[in-house]
Amino acid sequence: MPDRPEPITAPPSEREMASRIAALRARLAENRLDAYVVFDPDNIFYLTNFANYVHERPFVLVVPVEGTVSFVVPELECAHVRIRAVGPIELVTYFEFPAPAGEAWSDRLASVLPSAGRIGIEPVCPVYLAHALPGEAVRTALVDDARMVKSDYEIGRLAHAGRIVSDGHRELLAGCRPGELAISLFGSVTRSMITQMLTDMPHANMLASKFAAIVQPPSLSHDPHNFTDTFVALEEGGPHVSVINCRVNGYGAEIERTFFLGSVPDAARAPFEAMMAARRLVFERLVPGADTGEIDAAVRSLFETAGYGDRMLHRSGHSFGVTGHEAPFLAVGESREVEPGMLFSIEPGIYIPGIGGFRHSDTVLVAESGNVSLTDGPDQLADLVF
Amino acid sequence: MPDRPEPITAPPSEREMASRIAALRARLAENRLDAYVVFDPDNIFYLTNFANYVHERPFVLVVPVEGTVSFVVPELECAHVRIRAVGPIELVTYFEFPAPAGEAWSDRLASVLPSAGRIGIEPVCPVYLAHALPGEAVRTALVDDARMVKSDYEIGRLAHAGRIVSDGHRELLAGCRPGELAISLFGSVTRSMITQMLTDMPHANMLASKFAAIVQPPSLSHDPHNFTDTFVALEEGGPHVSVINCRVNGYGAEIERTFFLGSVPDAARAPFEAMMAARRLVFERLVPGADTGEIDAAVRSLFETAGYGDRMLHRSGHSFGVTGHEAPFLAVGESREVEPGMLFSIEPGIYIPGIGGFRHSDTVLVAESGNVSLTDGPDQLADLVF
Repeated sequence: MPDRPEPITAPPSEREMASRIAALRARLAENRLDAYVVFDPDNIFYLTNFANYVHERPFVLVVPVEGTVSFVVPELECAHVRIRAVGPIELVTYFEFPAPAGEAWSDRLASVLPSAGRIGIEPVCPVYLAHALPGEAVRTALVDDARMVKSDYEIGRLAHAGRIVSDGHRELLAGCRPGELAISLFGSVTRSMITQMLTDMPHANMLASKFAAIVQPPSLSHDPHNFTDTFVALEEGGPHVSVINCRVNGYGAEIERTFFLGSVPDAARAPFEAMMAARRLVFERLVPGADTGEIDAAVRSLFETAGYGDRMLHRSGHSFGVTGHEAPFLAVGESREVEPGMLFSIEPGIYIPGIGGFRHSDTVLVAESGNVSLTDGPDQLADLVF
Repeated sequence: MPDRPEPITAPPSEREMASRIAALRARLAENRLDAYVVFDPDNIFYLTNFANYVHERPFVLVVPVEGTVSFVVPELECAHVRIRAVGPIELVTYFEFPAPAGEAWSDRLASVLPSAGRIGIEPVCPVYLAHALPGEAVRTALVDDARMVKSDYEIGRLAHAGRIVSDGHRELLAGCRPGELAISLFGSVTRSMITQMLTDMPHANMLASKFAAIVQPPSLSHDPHNFTDTFVALEEGGPHVSVINCRVNGYGAEIERTFFLGSVPDAARAPFEAMMAARRLVFERLVPGADTGEIDAAVRSLFETAGYGDRMLHRSGHSFGVTGHEAPFLAVGESREVEPGMLFSIEPGIYIPGIGGFRHSDTVLVAESGNVSLTDGPDQLADLVF
């Protein structure tokens, strides 16, 4: 297996951003589109390095197949965009939302779009924006597709995110004892991770950052999206499941572990081993040329054979990039060739009410041959009893 | 002016939620729509009390003009939905995204929609969802419209949010001194507000909560959306601008003030007074029967007369509800009758590079006659020099 790539903390170069725009333009040409209209804030961040959050004042990036890239933004945000954006982008500002006829964001948008032709839009494009476009709107996820294979720069940033979450996870596990409140650990561990991010990157963008450090005790871990009890405490035994999922200055990673405090209940041993077998299977099969759906199908088959076919609640993995959770997916129902430079979580899970949840997760880069985890932590049962 | 309404901290009753669904259904009937498809997580929260965040697994609420309300959700989230949702809602689950043909979210959605007819969709509905609907999709903001006038329950929750932000703001101002880092104040004040929320409402939903406590020093306050310098410090003099904008367990409020440390620069006095005159104007005119756009036009006219016509960067106000920032707006370009039970920020502002920004904001309820602020803090210059 190759060495883990070196973390990068420098902001993206103009050249990096130009290559992202160029890749989108190549896809526009292939698809005979005259322009692409970008609304999804993650796609805007990917193409500009500027992070906005979505509210009623639209931010709309227009990438024509050739010529100037335009960014329609509220005037209020001009300085903010100029500080963060990397690459040659023309700002096209509108004063406010709502605005009198002739001065609205839609008027400004119309001024930078071809009056006819084929315009690509994202699947998540809101209908109010789609309806404001001239010509033919073609729904196609060109930026999301381009994001699936990472550049060396992105891999370096993701390796940095992987290091931050691995360090945070080590601190999280060290703080786990029966009676400890999960919310206290959340507070101290997220604070450490934010501090480390700001130490590494003092100009880190908080609008492009998100930190979570969660532990589910055995009474909840069978229900992996149930975080509703704010004052839940850790318990004797297990399985507890830890979750660190972060977006570190624009790049995502996660690490999760199934662990025990004091002792391992007998009923937990078999599902833990089945989860580990599925985990090994995905690590073995996640190589260039594999099919994303077939990997998940193999996990399902393994769990069925082990008697846990009805104990799965989710697919085997998702990708990372400018978010901590994105396409492509290791899921039956999707069929995509695994390529070097893709990243996936490896996290097949088993959930049994009355016993608990069993899931490890790592952030794993597909290499030229094989794969390499950008996160690290103990994964053997003997190393996960504290 | 009426007394401030009493804060409410109890969760919504089934009756409260039923009246929201009934109001939507009345609008469906008026608009000859057979059903409404809800995707916006704020609208879903308004109608169900369940908060989701948007990712690739869709959450889609279907409200037919009569009959069962259905909620299409990933199976993974069932327990979470059941814990939070209030009112009779049928869960219609899909296993995963992506999924094999016949098992996808869109298959489940089709099973609860009429196969033909007119279906209302939100302006922010993503095109992928709009394209998955049978029949005629009609873009109309029925839930957003219904949200504009608040129930007594909502007003009580908003009064609670107003109390939390006012207390937080008092603590923020008390911590302001030259050299203090804005990020330190952010940390301590948001922590206090979260603690107070959890004391008042131990089951508060963190997914429906958001806390910000910001100070812009005079070197940045002319640029009101520029929060890019993480380690910015407070300075001697001013104008500094404080910003507390929160969503407290699902209900939003904000308070902002222009203040000074030590002394008031001569150049700051006239714009401060002009801002205060505009603030008084909005407080006077924000009464039932007024027109939202005309109030903003009057502010613009006042600022032009005072010589600051080119120093405005935004409208005079926005509304609150299940968010801290929503329609309707006090903005030229919108014309809507002000009604009792609406809420607005009152925040006309002036921004002068080299001098700074001048803006107060309060969260103000329109009463049967007049209006009443749900937030409080000093607003006179003499009380804002620390």
